[in-house]
Amino acid sequence: MTTTQHAAGKVLVAQGGGPTAVINQSLVGVVQAARLQPGITHVYGSRFGIRGIVQEHFVDLTQETTANLERVAATPSAALGSTRDVTDDAVFERMFAVLKAHGIRQFFYIGGNGSAAVVRIVREQALRAGYPLQAFHVPKTIDNDLAGHDHSPGYASAARFVAQAFMGADLEVAALPGVYLGVVMGRDAGFLTAAAAAARMLPDDGPHLICLPERPFEMDAFLARVEQVHARLGRCVIAVSEGIRDREGRLLLTLLQESVERDPFGNVQLSGSGALADLLCGQIRTRLGIRRVRGDTFGYLQRSFLGCASDVDQREAREVGELAVHFARVGREEGSVAIQRVGNYAIAHTLLALDEVAGKAQSMGADMLGDDPFDVAPAFRIWLRPMLGSGFLQPARLRAPAVAKVLGARG
Amino acid sequence: MTTTQHAAGKVLVAQGGGPTAVINQSLVGVVQAARLQPGITHVYGSRFGIRGIVQEHFVDLTQETTANLERVAATPSAALGSTRDVTDDAVFERMFAVLKAHGIRQFFYIGGNGSAAVVRIVREQALRAGYPLQAFHVPKTIDNDLAGHDHSPGYASAARFVAQAFMGADLEVAALPGVYLGVVMGRDAGFLTAAAAAARMLPDDGPHLICLPERPFEMDAFLARVEQVHARLGRCVIAVSEGIRDREGRLLLTLLQESVERDPFGNVQLSGSGALADLLCGQIRTRLGIRRVRGDTFGYLQRSFLGCASDVDQREAREVGELAVHFARVGREEGSVAIQRVGNYAIAHTLLALDEVAGKAQSMGADMLGDDPFDVAPAFRIWLRPMLGSGFLQPARLRAPAVAKVLGARG
Repeated sequence: MTTTQHAAGKVLVAQGGGPTAVINQSLVGVVQAARLQPGITHVYGSRFGIRGIVQEHFVDLTQETTANLERVAATPSAALGSTRDVTDDAVFERMFAVLKAHGIRQFFYIGGNGSAAVVRIVREQALRAGYPLQAFHVPKTIDNDLAGHDHSPGYASAARFVAQAFMGADLEVAALPGVYLGVVMGRDAGFLTAAAAAARMLPDDGPHLICLPERPFEMDAFLARVEQVHARLGRCVIAVSEGIRDREGRLLLTLLQESVERDPFGNVQLSGSGALADLLCGQIRTRLGIRRVRGDTFGYLQRSFLGCASDVDQREAREVGELAVHFARVGREEGSVAIQRVGNYAIAHTLLALDEVAGKAQSMGADMLGDDPFDVAPAFRIWLRPMLGSGFLQPARLRAPAVAKVLGARG
Repeated sequence: MTTTQHAAGKVLVAQGGGPTAVINQSLVGVVQAARLQPGITHVYGSRFGIRGIVQEHFVDLTQETTANLERVAATPSAALGSTRDVTDDAVFERMFAVLKAHGIRQFFYIGGNGSAAVVRIVREQALRAGYPLQAFHVPKTIDNDLAGHDHSPGYASAARFVAQAFMGADLEVAALPGVYLGVVMGRDAGFLTAAAAAARMLPDDGPHLICLPERPFEMDAFLARVEQVHARLGRCVIAVSEGIRDREGRLLLTLLQESVERDPFGNVQLSGSGALADLLCGQIRTRLGIRRVRGDTFGYLQRSFLGCASDVDQREAREVGELAVHFARVGREEGSVAIQRVGNYAIAHTLLALDEVAGKAQSMGADMLGDDPFDVAPAFRIWLRPMLGSGFLQPARLRAPAVAKVLGARG
């Protein structure tokens, strides 16, 4: 790779899709590196993703202090604001007109596969118009569904939240026996739900069932397994993906609910409601006759809770932002900065073509799923563990021996 | 106070009611101090609270290593197991028979006001029988509803979780505008829900509404305030107690649901279901026409999540356990170890009579509630803040100035 003429002019950075605990690390990685480029006069941030581009709603990050940037980096959720707006040709035309009008020469979009698609289209418009615009996708998703990426920043911190939540839930039902069911985000990919497996230390630790969207959900088999675990241990902890489907691929939630909310893309609204947990708990209560059955829907806590970020995730999120600028600086024109795993634990980065990522998705492979329909394979846990970071907590149990009875049988 | 003949024989410790993040600190406080008492041959732990006494299900904590005890202390939920069993005279007679048969001379019960009532009855039985039994209540509750206690161990860590969750929620809807509603535990006392107020730093920060069980919930006034905040800020964050009631004192959840689950005490099951959040979100969506409305029910996360304990709470929980043993050692016969606030921030301890605590409850007073029906008074926040502990996170926002538009109005 040779160093080519670098961009003179302005840089624009934006954030898209759902927030994560570390998306601002990537933002600050872009901003800090971009401000160091010779010839770059301004680094702008677009408010609320591409909507800010359409509306010319920019802030001048060249004037942001480094101290505040560092504090923002450590803050969850998208500091610039995000969007899930649907786009059409008119929007893209307007966006390109705005980028041109402001002399933007480098565009960095932090987001998921939808954001990668936006980057690709904007880049194509620039190419057709002969306008010099370098355009990069900086990865972010708690779902970990980006094709070609070993994992994406944001995932590990959410995974840490999920694992620590299930540790606590298992302790809860060990103290007050019953069934606990937690619903985890992830419409099509089970990576985040599967992270519940990291909560286990001892063989009988929960979660005892993990239900993923990659596998058809069978109510009878599910209830049979819950009954079996509950009979053996007096408790049962269950991790369920919000995206579980039946054999025909229909979302369980749509089968059980009369009316569903849909997002602008026509996707059924899964989060922000306790309906799936309540429905599954109802089945366990009525069909198995178990009295103490509790369901939590982790909802927005799992992606925006303060104080549960993985330090590995923070560092990697910072790096992909910084590296996107480095790729631009050495003359690469476009791409998606992808983390590749090269050791246990070591990563390297490649710049994938936007086509390899835009609008595509990955889900858990057979090697990570394993044979048990309600569990994940050891390979998944080995893959996950280093990303959870340092200070990952583990509960401790009493090991004191039992005392011999004096009175014996009651009465 | 003079030192009297201390108990020779055995100590029994048990945990009751819902788990907290620091209840094991109190357990370890009792165990460590009890093991140091001369003449005490054994320190037993009862498995699953009073059920373990009835069933003689004890473990010998004299044989637990100090290193493991320290790890257990840092682990949420009740390490001995807990119970919510209903008790009757037969149960108490059996309990007393077991205590006598095992030569238990000191009984420490870590729990809420129900546990204090158990301590009182066991102590009365011993007095009537002329059996020397010192009996102490060690406070624990996330609801903070113990009468005569400034605050109770367990509350501050749950409050920290709630505050940090609402910080994240406010950042979430600042990035993707809409309404967010979080339902917090607390059947009769609003202390835990009110802790959401600690999430605010800037004047427009959420939560923008705080709905407490101490005040009648009026749907029309509620919706009017939500609409007003949403119109002004483009977002609205709402903290709701699971125990909100109408003017007649009827739980909102029971008014809106056809069937409800009741616990062994006849109380309506409030947690472990997303029903209240879903119902309120439905009202906001349909009656205000706001599209993006999300509801989370914090459920069991708020009391058992790992890694969110307040260090102040941990220390105070340890102390009340240790002090209960110290009171016994210097000859006090019974009581509830209560934290009193003597400075900002400084505490002292008193031994309350069991009658002052057993079966009684406190809720938020007028000085803490203030005049705004959807907020709390500054006095509450001043009272709460020091208990949240060190390392309490605060989010940061970008402060970069806006960039002047070049194209102006769209098109």
